[in-house]
Amino acid sequence: MTLEIESVYGEGACECASPDKQVSFVFSQTRPFDLVELEQLLQSVGWSQRPVGKVRRALDSSLLKVGLWKHDPCFPRLIGFARCTGDGVIDATVWDVAIHPIYQGFGLGKQLMAYVNRSLHDIGVRRITLFADPGVVSFYKSQGWILEPKGHRCAFWYAN
Amino acid sequence: MTLEIESVYGEGACECASPDKQVSFVFSQTRPFDLVELEQLLQSVGWSQRPVGKVRRALDSSLLKVGLWKHDPCFPRLIGFARCTGDGVIDATVWDVAIHPIYQGFGLGKQLMAYVNRSLHDIGVRRITLFADPGVVSFYKSQGWILEPKGHRCAFWYAN
Repeated sequence: MTLEIESVYGEGACECASPDKQVSFVFSQTRPFDLVELEQLLQSVGWSQRPVGKVRRALDSSLLKVGLWKHDPCFPRLIGFARCTGDGVIDATVWDVAIHPIYQGFGLGKQLMAYVNRSLHDIGVRRITLFADPGVVSFYKSQGWILEPKGHRCAFWYAN
Repeated sequence: MTLEIESVYGEGACECASPDKQVSFVFSQTRPFDLVELEQLLQSVGWSQRPVGKVRRALDSSLLKVGLWKHDPCFPRLIGFARCTGDGVIDATVWDVAIHPIYQGFGLGKQLMAYVNRSLHDIGVRRITLFADPGVVSFYKSQGWILEPKGHRCAFWYAN
């Protein structure tokens, strides 16, 4: 299966354990994204729309981009996503985590985050951070993420 | 003064308003850091020591690195620092903010953060984030940083 997967999803692509024997899911860091499909996925979980050109440049400058695909040799469908920025050595920050609503509740988000953490670990990052929405705080906590260690608070600055 | 400053601190270096007429301070994004001096500065404000090789690679992969120097044409002294990671388009995250303890309390930290925000704004970043220690939460709040907007919480993952 690995060779077939890599021919469709790029080098290093690997299967994600599936909740349904009839359907396969695949992680890939190399298969290019259709930016319209990606924005549709992100909007399906409530992120606001962003200009495609900006998204393209942001992806190009991200440390890691992970697509989770519902496998189909002809028409793979992007159903999950996460990306990271960072220096690749000391720190990485996870952004834009999404699992399409109809695929939520089957453990795919948990597997996606485990895949992201493992991938960052492999390149040597030892501290990973993210900003969790109120609705997903318990999701991250249950996986071992530590909320506000040593009293850290998150602060945002929005440019005019 | 600009030309003299640029010859010592690199292109684009600029003066920081000084609390003392006898002393000048300069911001630079291009003057190289002596990594031992940088680590001494970061340790003076309580950051833990990190391997020099890792710090070098982290700096190389940072979006922005700002040194705040106490001006001396022969022996400039690094008394402040901040760096940012990010995609350079949508998000940037500020790390390793430090003003040497003997230069704290004169508004230099505030100017450093304003300089960082302006520089990120100039390259197009519209949302800047950071993780604030409990001791500096009020410092950031007083400058207009928004704590945990929309109930965001910060989460950390430490690799084994």
